[in-house]
Amino acid sequence: MALMSGTALAREILDDAARRARARTGRKPCLATVLAGDDPASVTYVRMKQKRCAATGIDSRHVALPASATTRELVAAITELGEDEAVDGILLQHPVPRHIDERAAFEAIPPGKDVDGVTMHSFAAMAFGLPGFVSCTPGGIVRLLDAHGVDPAGQRAVVIGRSPILGKPAAMLLLARDATVTVCHSRTANLAEHVRQADIVVAAVGKPEFVRGDWIKPGAVVVDAGYNPGNVGDVEFDQARQRASLITPVPGGVGPVTIALLLEQTVAAANGEGQPEIVQSGR
Amino acid sequence: MALMSGTALAREILDDAARRARARTGRKPCLATVLAGDDPASVTYVRMKQKRCAATGIDSRHVALPASATTRELVAAITELGEDEAVDGILLQHPVPRHIDERAAFEAIPPGKDVDGVTMHSFAAMAFGLPGFVSCTPGGIVRLLDAHGVDPAGQRAVVIGRSPILGKPAAMLLLARDATVTVCHSRTANLAEHVRQADIVVAAVGKPEFVRGDWIKPGAVVVDAGYNPGNVGDVEFDQARQRASLITPVPGGVGPVTIALLLEQTVAAANGEGQPEIVQSGR
Repeated sequence: MALMSGTALAREILDDAARRARARTGRKPCLATVLAGDDPASVTYVRMKQKRCAATGIDSRHVALPASATTRELVAAITELGEDEAVDGILLQHPVPRHIDERAAFEAIPPGKDVDGVTMHSFAAMAFGLPGFVSCTPGGIVRLLDAHGVDPAGQRAVVIGRSPILGKPAAMLLLARDATVTVCHSRTANLAEHVRQADIVVAAVGKPEFVRGDWIKPGAVVVDAGYNPGNVGDVEFDQARQRASLITPVPGGVGPVTIALLLEQTVAAANGEGQPEIVQSGR
Repeated sequence: MALMSGTALAREILDDAARRARARTGRKPCLATVLAGDDPASVTYVRMKQKRCAATGIDSRHVALPASATTRELVAAITELGEDEAVDGILLQHPVPRHIDERAAFEAIPPGKDVDGVTMHSFAAMAFGLPGFVSCTPGGIVRLLDAHGVDPAGQRAVVIGRSPILGKPAAMLLLARDATVTVCHSRTANLAEHVRQADIVVAAVGKPEFVRGDWIKPGAVVVDAGYNPGNVGDVEFDQARQRASLITPVPGGVGPVTIALLLEQTVAAANGEGQPEIVQSGR
């Protein structure tokens, strides 16, 4: 078993983003973070991203709305950032308060500033293999595989979870890399059997140690995208590591790469790269 | 084995669409068909759709462009139809000539007139379980299953093919119906083994009798979305019918339901229904 650490890869991505940010002739790239409410974990995440921006030579701007903000107010705030030429990328920290229509808020982000890859446009671009920004966690998963020499082509990949910003885009990106992809979820019968057949397992359930170590096929690659209270992932790590050929630690696996991709995409947005073009899609 | 015929279901859908078209107070619903070039099969398909429109009380309008039309010209023609208040739905007959950027042409269709369900917006709406128009063939597949009492929830569905207008949206719709979905394709290793485990098989490859009858698990439901020269589907029908509990014939299976859905969605568009709203998506 070898550890698929994300810290070194994140470092590389950030160094490169910092280099490209410095090489710009105009102003620094700018990421706007938007937070509705004061959920402590969300506050921490946003602060972490802002710090990482500063260290990478990226300006950040923060828009804080009260937990009582309406969908209309949140959409208006995001729309304003979308029209602001001094803002290159927009991150809406989720989850948003329950009474807000999260999808409406996400859709207020123009595709060219969707550096977190959460819009319907970005999702379809990922699914169709068109240029555009990727969802940062699914994109980070694929970058981790690349960095560790794992080629998904022709492999059986099992994605556990089907959220619009994690499970589904992860499935689409692995499919674009020619894996044979199975999407499992809460209604899947005999999950263990699916996992046992997988060459690549992506756990994106959000339940601590939900994926049992003895489900892992010997030699499989295990990517744990979960991050639960107590620094615990979605996979029973100690048991799974005895069977996997490669496995991500939690923390220090997918997490750091996710943030690095956010910043990389912010610099790309500032440089007018990675913005949605429309090209012919393959088969 | 029972046949999963599409003709009776298509008849029902069309009768209902005709009833709703007649019940309107204003003008008839109107479907615009767009064809670039004169591919004989495409000409036949368009003519078939126009006839079906007439029989259902739907006006149709046709825009024919020469095979030499540029992407810009095709996009301009579609944009004009998008802005025309007398047009409710737009169908771009595909495939388009090779030199045209098909995706750019599709994206010129406003989501509210995308009654063939080919835009990136419609795809993401299908994937996220949001209101919107469905791709007609994948939507037809789900309607066929419904009409024959097949509930995909918790079932293993294997979709063979991953095109943006057939395989991928079919996978997303089956996932939305709580199936555990595997997407197989040209790079899949050991396709037969995947099919052998499937409770529901959707063949969307475009290769005559590519799916062998003896791959079918006894009792499985087989949906053949292929339609190849010589009226042959993607499944080896005579062998597969001996193992399947339900199987679609070709022709007379998915095909008629596909056209019926196109017309149903045209009437819905005219009535201002089925247009993309943004709602919260589930998990």
